[in-house]
Amino acid sequence: MFNSLEASPALLKLAVATFLAAALLGGPAALAAPFDEGMWTFDNPPLERLERDHGFIAGQDWFDHVRQSSVRFNDGGSGSFISPEGLVLTNHHVGFGAIQKLSSEGKDYVKNGYYAATKDAELKCQDMELNVLVSIEDVTKTIAGAVASHAPPKEANDQRKAAIARLEKEETEKTGLRCNVITLYQGGEYALYRFKKYTDVRLVFAPEEQIAFFGGDPDNFNFPRHDLDMAIFRVYEDGKPASTPHYLRWSVEGPKVNDLVFVSGHPGSTERLKTIAQLEYQRDVAYPFQLKSFERRLGVLKAFSAKSEESARRAKSQLRSIENTVKARRGEFQGLSDERLMERKADEEKKLRDYVGAHPDLSKEAGGAWDDVARARVKAKSIFVRSSFSTFRGSRLLAIAGSIVRLTAELEKKNEDRLEEYGDAKLDSLKLSLFSPAPIYGDLEETTLTDAFAEALEALGAGDPYVKATLDGKTPAAAAKAAVAGTKLFDAKARKELVDGGRKAVEASDDPMILLARRIDPISRELRKTTEDEIESVETVAGDRIAKARFQAYGRTVYPDATFTLRLAYGTVKGYTTAAGYEVPPFTTFHGLFERSGAFGNSGPFAIPARWTERKQAIRHETPFNFACTCDIIGGNSGSPAVNAKGELVGLIFDGNIESLVARFIYDDVVGRAVCVDSAAMLEAMRGIYQAEALVQEILGAADPR
Amino acid sequence: MFNSLEASPALLKLAVATFLAAALLGGPAALAAPFDEGMWTFDNPPLERLERDHGFIAGQDWFDHVRQSSVRFNDGGSGSFISPEGLVLTNHHVGFGAIQKLSSEGKDYVKNGYYAATKDAELKCQDMELNVLVSIEDVTKTIAGAVASHAPPKEANDQRKAAIARLEKEETEKTGLRCNVITLYQGGEYALYRFKKYTDVRLVFAPEEQIAFFGGDPDNFNFPRHDLDMAIFRVYEDGKPASTPHYLRWSVEGPKVNDLVFVSGHPGSTERLKTIAQLEYQRDVAYPFQLKSFERRLGVLKAFSAKSEESARRAKSQLRSIENTVKARRGEFQGLSDERLMERKADEEKKLRDYVGAHPDLSKEAGGAWDDVARARVKAKSIFVRSSFSTFRGSRLLAIAGSIVRLTAELEKKNEDRLEEYGDAKLDSLKLSLFSPAPIYGDLEETTLTDAFAEALEALGAGDPYVKATLDGKTPAAAAKAAVAGTKLFDAKARKELVDGGRKAVEASDDPMILLARRIDPISRELRKTTEDEIESVETVAGDRIAKARFQAYGRTVYPDATFTLRLAYGTVKGYTTAAGYEVPPFTTFHGLFERSGAFGNSGPFAIPARWTERKQAIRHETPFNFACTCDIIGGNSGSPAVNAKGELVGLIFDGNIESLVARFIYDDVVGRAVCVDSAAMLEAMRGIYQAEALVQEILGAADPR
Repeated sequence: MFNSLEASPALLKLAVATFLAAALLGGPAALAAPFDEGMWTFDNPPLERLERDHGFIAGQDWFDHVRQSSVRFNDGGSGSFISPEGLVLTNHHVGFGAIQKLSSEGKDYVKNGYYAATKDAELKCQDMELNVLVSIEDVTKTIAGAVASHAPPKEANDQRKAAIARLEKEETEKTGLRCNVITLYQGGEYALYRFKKYTDVRLVFAPEEQIAFFGGDPDNFNFPRHDLDMAIFRVYEDGKPASTPHYLRWSVEGPKVNDLVFVSGHPGSTERLKTIAQLEYQRDVAYPFQLKSFERRLGVLKAFSAKSEESARRAKSQLRSIENTVKARRGEFQGLSDERLMERKADEEKKLRDYVGAHPDLSKEAGGAWDDVARARVKAKSIFVRSSFSTFRGSRLLAIAGSIVRLTAELEKKNEDRLEEYGDAKLDSLKLSLFSPAPIYGDLEETTLTDAFAEALEALGAGDPYVKATLDGKTPAAAAKAAVAGTKLFDAKARKELVDGGRKAVEASDDPMILLARRIDPISRELRKTTEDEIESVETVAGDRIAKARFQAYGRTVYPDATFTLRLAYGTVKGYTTAAGYEVPPFTTFHGLFERSGAFGNSGPFAIPARWTERKQAIRHETPFNFACTCDIIGGNSGSPAVNAKGELVGLIFDGNIESLVARFIYDDVVGRAVCVDSAAMLEAMRGIYQAEALVQEILGAADPR
Repeated sequence: MFNSLEASPALLKLAVATFLAAALLGGPAALAAPFDEGMWTFDNPPLERLERDHGFIAGQDWFDHVRQSSVRFNDGGSGSFISPEGLVLTNHHVGFGAIQKLSSEGKDYVKNGYYAATKDAELKCQDMELNVLVSIEDVTKTIAGAVASHAPPKEANDQRKAAIARLEKEETEKTGLRCNVITLYQGGEYALYRFKKYTDVRLVFAPEEQIAFFGGDPDNFNFPRHDLDMAIFRVYEDGKPASTPHYLRWSVEGPKVNDLVFVSGHPGSTERLKTIAQLEYQRDVAYPFQLKSFERRLGVLKAFSAKSEESARRAKSQLRSIENTVKARRGEFQGLSDERLMERKADEEKKLRDYVGAHPDLSKEAGGAWDDVARARVKAKSIFVRSSFSTFRGSRLLAIAGSIVRLTAELEKKNEDRLEEYGDAKLDSLKLSLFSPAPIYGDLEETTLTDAFAEALEALGAGDPYVKATLDGKTPAAAAKAAVAGTKLFDAKARKELVDGGRKAVEASDDPMILLARRIDPISRELRKTTEDEIESVETVAGDRIAKARFQAYGRTVYPDATFTLRLAYGTVKGYTTAAGYEVPPFTTFHGLFERSGAFGNSGPFAIPARWTERKQAIRHETPFNFACTCDIIGGNSGSPAVNAKGELVGLIFDGNIESLVARFIYDDVVGRAVCVDSAAMLEAMRGIYQAEALVQEILGAADPR
């Protein structure tokens, strides 16, 4: 609605004013200046910057070709076509779920890898949907036109939602394609994305998980790296390999240092429009507390694991998940703690606020928004510690009890009046999880619940209502012991009986875990209401006002926040210098795989598959293995192709280093890096280690698709 | 004096009280507890800790043998005997000066390496002195007894100095050995060290500098590392290889991860008794300013270098030296900024102050010392910025002019009244440097001087006396240009004439650089006097009081600050996790050398010598190359042997990682690591790459020395 000149005479003035402001205040140019930043939509690639900074000039056909060679893995990942007969390259960790589902006793393809030397041997995946973005249409006018002028917010929102649903339905019927209206620039723009769907997807090639995820958790989010994180599938139509005329030619050599590379994929979500007040809150309040809390939990789980092998087994998945979270959060926190990055953020915010201040129309619309956010954050801070301890936290059983208590209460309300997560649409998957027969271990439950109670007691003091509700006059250990020892919720049948019995059954229950959840419930609901009414709603409205002001000021010279739709990023192949002054090279080689494996005694996460030891001499160790580049990516980009200026596939995105994790809030090209498998390495391994000659021939033998 | 029970009845009480305090306050044990910390004297190895923490038990002969196998390179390094016929192993960078002096046109042993396949081919070094510590004798009583009780400080100092000189002379005459009285524990203990001297030292083996210093400045102070930083010399007596019955057996395998290793070498100096007030001053005042200033200078030199190849050549040595300094300082600063380490320091200080507070005699002696230091630091802070700009800084010519102005003035005084650096004993080397014909480049001088003037102007403002003195009414650029353009001091002869002409000639000179130095001189002298009288002298006295209190409290359960005399450190072979969460392995291998070289295109500091490329297949790439260990080392330890529990040589210390640089102030075993060449790697390279079979046979063929 905001890039439509017809919408309002005032906006026409703004469009002109924007241009002047850009010149006077260093608006758009200043935002864009020295960085290879951005997750650009394919209908708005940064042509000027690509030409100015990299001498890259290409016609629309280049972008169309790359777009149509790009594939979305609907359960959260990216990929690309690499042959005219439907071969799709993605990460092993994107294909992991499918590979695991194809495995069975005696056929562990995760552990041993898989290669279909002929098409007959390709294994059909149980439930995989791939999408290809066929076309983009700007429908801002249509959606905006459906909203009555001066409609109050809720009404406008309903009208907009209805218009979107109508358009999506019409288009789906008309084209037979998957059609979604994508909200960009926080509502500054609406675009209709039409996708071709593939649901017959078959596994062609996967290496051993051990080499795909070499280095395991220690190397996760790090570089230098030595991972063959690849898997190859093929899409079928009508039982035959699909014809995919748009695919990426494979670069035999891979990229060179400083080469321009593009990443075409599906970044999940970013929060780059957060205000300084919000970021400072994250940095000063939320992250320090959460990191400390996570580390405390890690300590408890490690101590538990140390007791016996069986204890270690029981705690393993929880431990791994928290380790991964801590690492990611720490990366984001380090980024937020980097004064240089915060200064850049502050500078951007000041520029926009100055611009808004200089334009009365914008001022009226968005002038107070930053202060509204700041006030909301003050409120958030005042209830932060209490909010952190308000939920059914600390154990799986307590979470289950909490869900049962709430579900049975919420089901008595009309759908639209319920807490969001208990809406009709969500009930199936909620019940699936609630009634899962997966084993729950009493000793682990008691240990983590004791610690959660103790943590709350330390943070809030004995007089706090939540602490009183959890401890019920006991010590943390005694309270946890009583709840775990007496509960019947270990048994999925008991949970089902309670849910089936409804609120009455729950209120009549004397199960100590249910009683505990019932004591917590009202405290938790009250804090949630305060948070929603006094913080979240204020920030949503203010955030929209800021986003709109920003779109008016900068328009499409900036890129929208990520939305798990196709975006184009670009940058160069480049090493970096760590904070400790260590020069990290742009590339690793196979030499380094053996170095790192050997350095750790070829054991644990650093063990290489037997096949690699046996066929060590069959690969050229100096072949580039993984490389780092400055492209702007985030989760969801996994499996994205890295493409050179000629449109050839030179790499495969599979991770970002820990310094890149701040990308949630701000892009950084000083130490933040996207991490790719080199196309030369994939080829060398497919040939030398896996002897997948037929597959290599198909990939290399295909004629140029353009 | 303080470990002598006869000295004073009060001290006897203290000695007993110490024991009680240790038990009550957790004194000594608490200081020593969880770390493999310490640079121990050989007459006081930490036997209990070695047994308790590592199950290591050895008789005095073990320590005597390691001591007598250890060698000091008198120009600042360490080494060890590795054969009964006088072979000495040290670092390439310790032997560098000697190797360079042996090189000539067409015989560049630094670049190409050297190997003497027979003894005849061994090359005699021009000026090298090696020392071996033959015996240690506690002479505290003798030295203390020579000082009259109740003598005022200066008198006591003179008496002590005289006693030391007397004893050293006597012992030298009596034994024919080099005899030095070493002041330990800041005067808590005096020990007579007798050294055997070797002055006929010959070069046997040196690899190419390129592989000894692989990775150059970027890898300096870092780990993982891939350096063959070794050189082998042989000591001769009476023209024949010296008989060295004490030498270290070479371990063919090298160490394994977690192995206990000892480092026997000569740490130069540490400042571990600095108070929190002094460390905070360093962290908050001195380092931030100095790092910023160094980085500014780096920027100026880089801009200068970018102008042409010749400019780059002119600035190179200055640039390298500042780069190295910045890296080292930044490491120390990072360590001081680590709250965990500062908390440990604060904790140690609190324990000692509590202990002193609980003992009236000690309280009287040392109670106020910490506050005296803190007050002196407040004073230091108040004049810090002015002090930073008070010298003849910014250019070589100005430094020369300053020296000439001061030297000619000081020479008119009696020796004992002069500024320390113009004492008779120092005049020769001062003149050597002052009259050096090494070229000085006017353009570089003008550039750096301009920046130094500008930096002072920015920091102090135009009204400051130093700024007025330097600018003399001009802009920084004009002032620098005038001084450089008009001076004759480029010419060593002109300098000599001024010095020969004495104060009169200097005062009559109209050389603009001399005039500039004369304007600066009085301002500089005044600030220096304030610093010496109100800060340094206060801190010296307070520091001695604290050191004595510490020695009384802990005695020899702690180790003395480093003094470039033989010390024993110990620790384990161990990797670590960086701040960014990267797992650094304990070892590297030859694989990694080729990885890192290849990743940087085998160029610049990452290029490997041609011989290594040619003979790549002749070495087993999985051989451990460098390793990291937790031993407590610092500059001066370069070339020290790393020795296993059996007394075998398993490695060769050549560096510490950047995280270890804080060792100047405090030992850290969490991320701080000493870095060694693995004995297995040296063997593999000597055989496979250098085909030095005779040398290897001598090293391996020797019978066990014990």
